[in-house]
Amino acid sequence: MITAKTLEDVISTLSHVTRIDEFSATSSFPEFDQELVRPIIEEAGRLASEVLAPLNRTGDEHGAKLVDGDVIAAPGFKEAYDAFREGGWMSLAFPEEYSGQGLPQTMALPVMELIQAANMSFSLCPMLSFGAIEALMAHGTDEQKTTYLPKLVSGEWTGTMNLTEPQAGSDVGALKTKAEPIGDGSYAITGQKIFITWGDHDLTDNIIHLVLARLPDAPAGSKGISLFLCPKFLLDDAGEPGERNGARCIGLEQKMGIHASPTCVMEFDGAKGWMIGEPNKGLAAMFTMMNSARLQVGIQGVAQSEAAYQAARQYADERLQGRRPGEAGAAAIVRHADVQNMLLNMRAKTLTARAICYECARAGDVAHTSNDDAAKTQAKWREEILTPIAKAWSTDIGVEMASLGVQVHGGMGFMGETLAAQIYRDARIAPIYEGTNGIQAMDLVSRKLPMAGGKAIASMLDEYIRTAEELKASADDSLKHVGKKLGAAIGILRQASDWLSANGPDGADASMFGATAYLDMFGKVAGVHYLARGAMHAQSAGSNSAGELTDLALFLSEFDLSLVEGLLDRVRLGETLSYNRRMELLS
Amino acid sequence: MITAKTLEDVISTLSHVTRIDEFSATSSFPEFDQELVRPIIEEAGRLASEVLAPLNRTGDEHGAKLVDGDVIAAPGFKEAYDAFREGGWMSLAFPEEYSGQGLPQTMALPVMELIQAANMSFSLCPMLSFGAIEALMAHGTDEQKTTYLPKLVSGEWTGTMNLTEPQAGSDVGALKTKAEPIGDGSYAITGQKIFITWGDHDLTDNIIHLVLARLPDAPAGSKGISLFLCPKFLLDDAGEPGERNGARCIGLEQKMGIHASPTCVMEFDGAKGWMIGEPNKGLAAMFTMMNSARLQVGIQGVAQSEAAYQAARQYADERLQGRRPGEAGAAAIVRHADVQNMLLNMRAKTLTARAICYECARAGDVAHTSNDDAAKTQAKWREEILTPIAKAWSTDIGVEMASLGVQVHGGMGFMGETLAAQIYRDARIAPIYEGTNGIQAMDLVSRKLPMAGGKAIASMLDEYIRTAEELKASADDSLKHVGKKLGAAIGILRQASDWLSANGPDGADASMFGATAYLDMFGKVAGVHYLARGAMHAQSAGSNSAGELTDLALFLSEFDLSLVEGLLDRVRLGETLSYNRRMELLS
Repeated sequence: MITAKTLEDVISTLSHVTRIDEFSATSSFPEFDQELVRPIIEEAGRLASEVLAPLNRTGDEHGAKLVDGDVIAAPGFKEAYDAFREGGWMSLAFPEEYSGQGLPQTMALPVMELIQAANMSFSLCPMLSFGAIEALMAHGTDEQKTTYLPKLVSGEWTGTMNLTEPQAGSDVGALKTKAEPIGDGSYAITGQKIFITWGDHDLTDNIIHLVLARLPDAPAGSKGISLFLCPKFLLDDAGEPGERNGARCIGLEQKMGIHASPTCVMEFDGAKGWMIGEPNKGLAAMFTMMNSARLQVGIQGVAQSEAAYQAARQYADERLQGRRPGEAGAAAIVRHADVQNMLLNMRAKTLTARAICYECARAGDVAHTSNDDAAKTQAKWREEILTPIAKAWSTDIGVEMASLGVQVHGGMGFMGETLAAQIYRDARIAPIYEGTNGIQAMDLVSRKLPMAGGKAIASMLDEYIRTAEELKASADDSLKHVGKKLGAAIGILRQASDWLSANGPDGADASMFGATAYLDMFGKVAGVHYLARGAMHAQSAGSNSAGELTDLALFLSEFDLSLVEGLLDRVRLGETLSYNRRMELLS
Repeated sequence: MITAKTLEDVISTLSHVTRIDEFSATSSFPEFDQELVRPIIEEAGRLASEVLAPLNRTGDEHGAKLVDGDVIAAPGFKEAYDAFREGGWMSLAFPEEYSGQGLPQTMALPVMELIQAANMSFSLCPMLSFGAIEALMAHGTDEQKTTYLPKLVSGEWTGTMNLTEPQAGSDVGALKTKAEPIGDGSYAITGQKIFITWGDHDLTDNIIHLVLARLPDAPAGSKGISLFLCPKFLLDDAGEPGERNGARCIGLEQKMGIHASPTCVMEFDGAKGWMIGEPNKGLAAMFTMMNSARLQVGIQGVAQSEAAYQAARQYADERLQGRRPGEAGAAAIVRHADVQNMLLNMRAKTLTARAICYECARAGDVAHTSNDDAAKTQAKWREEILTPIAKAWSTDIGVEMASLGVQVHGGMGFMGETLAAQIYRDARIAPIYEGTNGIQAMDLVSRKLPMAGGKAIASMLDEYIRTAEELKASADDSLKHVGKKLGAAIGILRQASDWLSANGPDGADASMFGATAYLDMFGKVAGVHYLARGAMHAQSAGSNSAGELTDLALFLSEFDLSLVEGLLDRVRLGETLSYNRRMELLS
């Protein structure tokens, strides 16, 4: 759930942490008017709380159904999707040439966050379309773009991503689906895909499947995979949905959560498809949209954490239980110190995870649009480094905070009809899909740490150190204290980076064993860094939110940064217990 | 799920950590034969894996049902309960005078652990009976004992605990149910109770409800509560179930997990009952069984953690995905360093939580039976201190490890039919019921820390320090290292204890704000302490498990003890942010 306070926190993060106002002056979005931030967020907040949130519990209870070979969305979802599409929410950040609105991702991401916080199942439908649109924009032919993009961007049709097969999950290269040329430039696609999110539904007239498959002569492994476009209904001469194609949902997974998001087993039975991009370069095409897809999942973690916080805070305000020392009568549980501890942790962690995700989006915006080469390179580095952190750290936070949300609710949190329990179930998928969080940590250590000979991460930590110095020089005692704590933690993070670099960042066993602890450390440091920087800006701007941002940064500097030094031992643990010894201990 | 390895870990903990052999020589169980440990554990393991585990998934899917006013257990549960009862598993640790077997709790607890690991829903039925039996043993009249205890101890009947009402959860003193004297020595009980575990079912011929209620002239609050015994069927002259009493299940909660455990709304409509113990002393009567009930829930955390570990380890052995560097073909995921990290964490944490719970049981056994006053006092202190830690730390571990178990399973872990997903849902209740974990932390700080003027905790930490010194003097380099880490961590724990004592252990706001962090710290230190002490003993005994215990203690000394210093800042955070400021931040 989201509240007015959610919207204020989102706007405050955009204003003071991510400095979205800078876009209007210096970036490649010269027409972006920062006065739009508040109305866009408030309007998205209305869609989220008035249209999508009311369908969240019913969607969970009813789920999507497979009826006579067609997937029927949960009640009300079609109408909600129409409202979403008609409001223009699908097209915010796509180029105007495809009937998009050309806004920065930094603006579109918070909108998706609100939608996800209100109804995670619903949000997955546009999210998958985003991926299909990006792949088409980057690799499609002009004809493919003209034919499909406007209707995908407007939301008239949706897109899906068909990667996983039973034997090919994290290791996409193991997939077996075949694509045989028919002779007319198209291909017959045959195979089975699993875990296909919104693979079929009745929200739109057509669905554009993007499918990874192998050509008959393709080399084995990940270098023999091509990407194909395969519509549910083949287009007629007018470009409208015509003949039914051989791509069908043959089963829906029964899942622990996100019940209203149909997770399909898709059967491609000689389905007609067209290649996107080069033969055997399908994986590369998928990689082009990986950063944004991972960030989309990262913001789901933020959204679930926010939803859990708002539900818990409201419950804690209403639920009377126990007494405050020295007072008569039952007290609202928000007044008990231990409950405050849980709630403050939830609020502060949500803010830091949000800050990391928005910063990642901003880096992406600059990297994709800046005309300044140096700025572009720096921004690309930031995007590459922050993406696995945004994905893994935020979704871990999502799960942890969802669990705390249940705890604040007490016995009521365990009841099936309680929103807190749904969030606990829904949020659990995010650390798994779009690359498990373990894979994100390995990506951070084995690809991002060695990037530009180590300069990418080093320059980012230099920037963090400069912020810490500024904080230490602040006139505000709290910020001064945060600066000291932050400076020390950055020093530890550098030590961890050095150790991992020395112990084989290229997938060597010892460094991989410590990868998750490194990512956790990085998330804690990055999060407090952005939050404290935002607090500093809010103070100098005389903003109402300055006090809150400052105190929450102070809270986390003790609550979280204090753990960073201990995490260094976790990072280096791979050399203490050898691979063979670990295997024995797990036998 | 449990495996042969589970049984070995349980036996190894009993042998080397808890030293159950000492009971046969020095304790009040002179007849206990330590040669019985293995056969009892193996036989319990058979019941758990052959009878109870096969009903775990079906129980989750089917659930208990309320049919025409009666609760019907999930299919197979009645037969499983018969096997449990006929095997004598109910009566292990009860006195022989009530047809119990007089074994130590230290022996009965691991048996319950195995049952809980196989089928948490099932295990709750005997668990609630334990509570009713203890209350009756401690406070019942001779006639009540003779009438009810033999059939409860044998498992022919079961017992329930009726505490919670909608407005009276953690604050039991707020309850409103009334008990009016009828004039024949019995009372008419009227009111509604919620969250009553196994409040009704068809496993046995009778159910003995223990109910907290107020006499007509009772003072307000917790000093006006009395305890009543209220059978489902009133007994006839032969002591057999006769007339139906006015205590009925009028609804079942729909819960996120433990679906096969019926959670009842109970209506007492002038139900006939008899007082247990003194008028207005009902809460004290409940407190007498609180330690053992909390420990029973603590061991549920261990059981869920063990079940999650075994399921994840098996999956990681079977699931092929990705490659090991330098090898051809897909590798089992257990061979990837990051997966090993998760699995080692799961195994090591399970062992430490188990060690804490068994130590708590041993302390209880000694406290309740020793003839040596000094030993009795020390043991009573240990039991009092370890109980909130066993309850809260183990159940937090249960939830965390269940979540890691899902993660190891990848996408499969999110599927509804996967055991890992069930454990994730089931385990979530344990930090809530039997006193939320926040209440356990407050109990530790506000009641246990000041116990005996602080001497109770101080003497326990002195004992821990002696172990650390012994470890440092060990010839084994790993144990030496653990000793150093442990010594440092105990020093920090002392600092935390001192700070909390100085800042008002008696429920003062600043100390309550840090209570959860203190308990977390304490659990980490206590767990590694017991594990390392066990490793030392196993080494000197030349046991096969010495190497494993040593390496797992080494793993945790880096993985967990390293975080203890940082947690000290969390403990002291209550003075940084004032109560009023926290309320503002949460508004």
